[in-house]
Amino acid sequence: MNAQERIQEAIKALQTRKFYTAYPENPRAYAEDANAKGLEAFQKQLNEPFPGLYDEGCEGRIGEEVSPYMQVGLGVDYPKFSVDNLINNATHSHNSWKNISVAKRAEILLESLDAVKEKFFELAYATMHTTGQSFVMSFQASGPHANDRALESIALGYHELTRYDSNVEWVKNMGKFDLKINKNFKPISKGIGLVIGCSTFPTWNTVPGVFANLIVGNAVIVKPHPKSILPIAIVIAEMQKVFASYGLAQTIVQLAPDVISNPITKDLAENSAVQLIDYTGGSQFGEYIESLPNKTVFTEKAGVNSLILQSVNDPKAVFGNIAFSASLYSGQMCTAPQNIFVSKDGIKTADGNLTYDEVVAGIQVSIKGLADNPKMGPYTLGAIQNDLTKKRVETVAKDNSVSTVTVDQVNPEFPEARMVIPMVIGVDASDSQWKEECFGPLLFIVKTDSHEQSLNLAEELGKSKGAITCSCYTTNEDYQSRVEETMNNAFVPVSFNFTGAAFVNQHAAFSDFHVTGGNPSGNATFTDSLFVNRRFVWVGNRFA
Amino acid sequence: MNAQERIQEAIKALQTRKFYTAYPENPRAYAEDANAKGLEAFQKQLNEPFPGLYDEGCEGRIGEEVSPYMQVGLGVDYPKFSVDNLINNATHSHNSWKNISVAKRAEILLESLDAVKEKFFELAYATMHTTGQSFVMSFQASGPHANDRALESIALGYHELTRYDSNVEWVKNMGKFDLKINKNFKPISKGIGLVIGCSTFPTWNTVPGVFANLIVGNAVIVKPHPKSILPIAIVIAEMQKVFASYGLAQTIVQLAPDVISNPITKDLAENSAVQLIDYTGGSQFGEYIESLPNKTVFTEKAGVNSLILQSVNDPKAVFGNIAFSASLYSGQMCTAPQNIFVSKDGIKTADGNLTYDEVVAGIQVSIKGLADNPKMGPYTLGAIQNDLTKKRVETVAKDNSVSTVTVDQVNPEFPEARMVIPMVIGVDASDSQWKEECFGPLLFIVKTDSHEQSLNLAEELGKSKGAITCSCYTTNEDYQSRVEETMNNAFVPVSFNFTGAAFVNQHAAFSDFHVTGGNPSGNATFTDSLFVNRRFVWVGNRFA
Repeated sequence: MNAQERIQEAIKALQTRKFYTAYPENPRAYAEDANAKGLEAFQKQLNEPFPGLYDEGCEGRIGEEVSPYMQVGLGVDYPKFSVDNLINNATHSHNSWKNISVAKRAEILLESLDAVKEKFFELAYATMHTTGQSFVMSFQASGPHANDRALESIALGYHELTRYDSNVEWVKNMGKFDLKINKNFKPISKGIGLVIGCSTFPTWNTVPGVFANLIVGNAVIVKPHPKSILPIAIVIAEMQKVFASYGLAQTIVQLAPDVISNPITKDLAENSAVQLIDYTGGSQFGEYIESLPNKTVFTEKAGVNSLILQSVNDPKAVFGNIAFSASLYSGQMCTAPQNIFVSKDGIKTADGNLTYDEVVAGIQVSIKGLADNPKMGPYTLGAIQNDLTKKRVETVAKDNSVSTVTVDQVNPEFPEARMVIPMVIGVDASDSQWKEECFGPLLFIVKTDSHEQSLNLAEELGKSKGAITCSCYTTNEDYQSRVEETMNNAFVPVSFNFTGAAFVNQHAAFSDFHVTGGNPSGNATFTDSLFVNRRFVWVGNRFA
Repeated sequence: MNAQERIQEAIKALQTRKFYTAYPENPRAYAEDANAKGLEAFQKQLNEPFPGLYDEGCEGRIGEEVSPYMQVGLGVDYPKFSVDNLINNATHSHNSWKNISVAKRAEILLESLDAVKEKFFELAYATMHTTGQSFVMSFQASGPHANDRALESIALGYHELTRYDSNVEWVKNMGKFDLKINKNFKPISKGIGLVIGCSTFPTWNTVPGVFANLIVGNAVIVKPHPKSILPIAIVIAEMQKVFASYGLAQTIVQLAPDVISNPITKDLAENSAVQLIDYTGGSQFGEYIESLPNKTVFTEKAGVNSLILQSVNDPKAVFGNIAFSASLYSGQMCTAPQNIFVSKDGIKTADGNLTYDEVVAGIQVSIKGLADNPKMGPYTLGAIQNDLTKKRVETVAKDNSVSTVTVDQVNPEFPEARMVIPMVIGVDASDSQWKEECFGPLLFIVKTDSHEQSLNLAEELGKSKGAITCSCYTTNEDYQSRVEETMNNAFVPVSFNFTGAAFVNQHAAFSDFHVTGGNPSGNATFTDSLFVNRRFVWVGNRFA
């Protein structure tokens, strides 16, 4: 398929929202030696300057990433630029990039995704050793899933940018004569887009904004999280190579690394030349970003995700599914549940009632069982990205007199991995600690007065603190309808009765909207039409 | 054609952007006795309570409109509601309206536009005697053109709300088995939309936001300008009748009148139940509206529109076109030019050069000629809506030692009409008064150092103060390209070399984007896809 056919296929997928992928998620779908080569490339990179990035005018090099698996520094550094330098480069490259046709931009961007595809395994190891994700998740999230999300942005952008006939002869009959006016309709790119990455999903959460900006003609500066630079550096280096191969400025997309002790994010964000900001990260900084005047802002902040447990057929299957959702990457996914609402009267099952305490125990047992399973535990939990997350979880556990349960089954490959088994803490609805986001491997099981209160609390929390997902287990049709309507009205999507291989955490490109944009968890969506349309302006000129 | 076919035809028109209208603009296209009946209805309404609006729970009646043609009060009053009452009604009606299917909502809204069509002539007289527009402009702007703009919102909304398949079976092959998840995708309306009208175009600028809100399922409160209530009251009464005929709450759209001495706009705008605000009016209040936290805001504020005069073939035709654009509704259109940039070296014409002074004189003569033409003058100028506008223009003229030129040809039908001939004031580029919006019949002819400076000043003004239109006359292809690119990059559309029946002031539904949304003249566009998509949120639910 040529570029145009690939784009059209992706546009169709966006409309039908059925399963679609352009980059298979199974590592075995790639060359037999790809994994070994990727590992080798990653290992060769350790303790070396990162090569291949545009570095003209750079002012030294920086980098301070630490592997959550090995708990040692990666020793990789990247070209460092002043904010002025970054802005000047972006202004310069924007002036040429914006004048390239949409079809050509799409072709170039597809080619850059294909170049990234050749790096999927190296990307996987880079992601593992910056985020703490397991190998399989690292491969999928930073490789094929991120590329699919990027393709989604390109396809939607292409669709929107070409939605109007661009040259029109407008003829109005005025009675005795025809008034003829020629018109053109042009999507004008807004300028320079800053994309601020997070530490846990350094490419998956970054590339949608990057490619959405690029397809509409904006130049991009990526400010990665200082602890997760390598994955997106690999992506940007590939993109810069492709731009150069077309004789274009490499600085159409730039990497802007910084270090924790000397952050440059605010300087970039507040710069008047920066017109657009994409942000993934904590709510407090996200609210600051949203408050900046005269910027077009796309945020994914934190939410507090609810799980409503009302009635189930097979409690074991449900507890297993919940355990996996809470354990996957140690609860460090923005889509992981934090609070499980259970009525004080317990839940109905096919084999009679389970009390609240039995539910708590059942979930605890499932999590422990998963964590201790040598074939599953280490590869589900991954490692804790940030030491602060581990400490916070331990403090909450201590405050609640829940003893910190260590992971019996350490990761045989990485005995130093930063790990903690997800904590299960039973609390009363009147308690307050579950009402705030507690990022990391922590589940509150909230005892409510009734299933009605469970729903009310989930709704209130979605409205006040935001939620990216909601999960509900119920065999009662009426209750299910009410949960759907109530949560949807708080702009929270609901996943019902997930068992087996369906997990609330996973949002698929071309089908699932990631973050609705309607509640405090974020103001934007991967990927609705606003995600591209807000990045440019339609201007129509008229010619007598 | 049924509703569905009419919507599909309008959607197609939006894409092709060729001439399209669903409601003919020629008064003669309507019934022979329609004009007489409309006039009679308007005259009967004078000094009477306005009937037909929902008034349950109203707290008295108010109204203080004054005819700019007769300079006497209309004596019409409208049911007055407390803010709490309006919000309660809207909350109640939103709950039912949002659950009606998109197709049904579209059908009901089309029917309400058809009901409004029956009132076009009454609307015309109501618009004349609140805004000061001429009869023909009143008829066209408040009648067919407003209805076309409303239909545009309905059609675009319908298109966007139905763009995804709403129920999907998502099947992912997992190797040994298929993972099947049923998904639905629902556009969830944001809630209550407040639409704040202006005094000069009480329906044309109001109905796009009203119908865009309604098609997505929001309830609407219209807060008209206290001096221009009657036209939109007529529209809302028709809509309420149609809602009632479907057994729906009339309060899906409500009129919220107030008086200058006791405004309720801020109370409504700041109410937490109001999720969306559409605003047309001055920049200062518009900036306050834009600054309100947690609101989805669509503004059309003031701009300072530029006209660049570089070179022309036929100066008489050009000056005539400019004179008409500046005189139409006495310069009270948001699309009227304010500043004409002319190089100190004058302009090239087919018959040699014209000096700057000759350009000023030529435009002055054309304006005077138009104003004094008994068949054209009164019907082009209309009347000045607000006494403050007349006083401001007279003050500026006096400050510039330009004697106020009275209109020789008074309006024979309305000898008391508030009129002033458009002032032409020659100023130097170094002067500052032309850099601010001077609303009303006032043209600054700015003497610049060069055609380059003319363009630079127009660009700067567009970026700093905003501009809704730009007009340029040039016979030089290179200059034309630079004007197009430069102004477009400031998100200002340009109309080139308009003469004859083409006027920069006029923006056609289904073709011209009104306000780009990219410069300080406003943050929204009639009608791009953002105009409807920002009013609702996509939510996708998943079912195992």
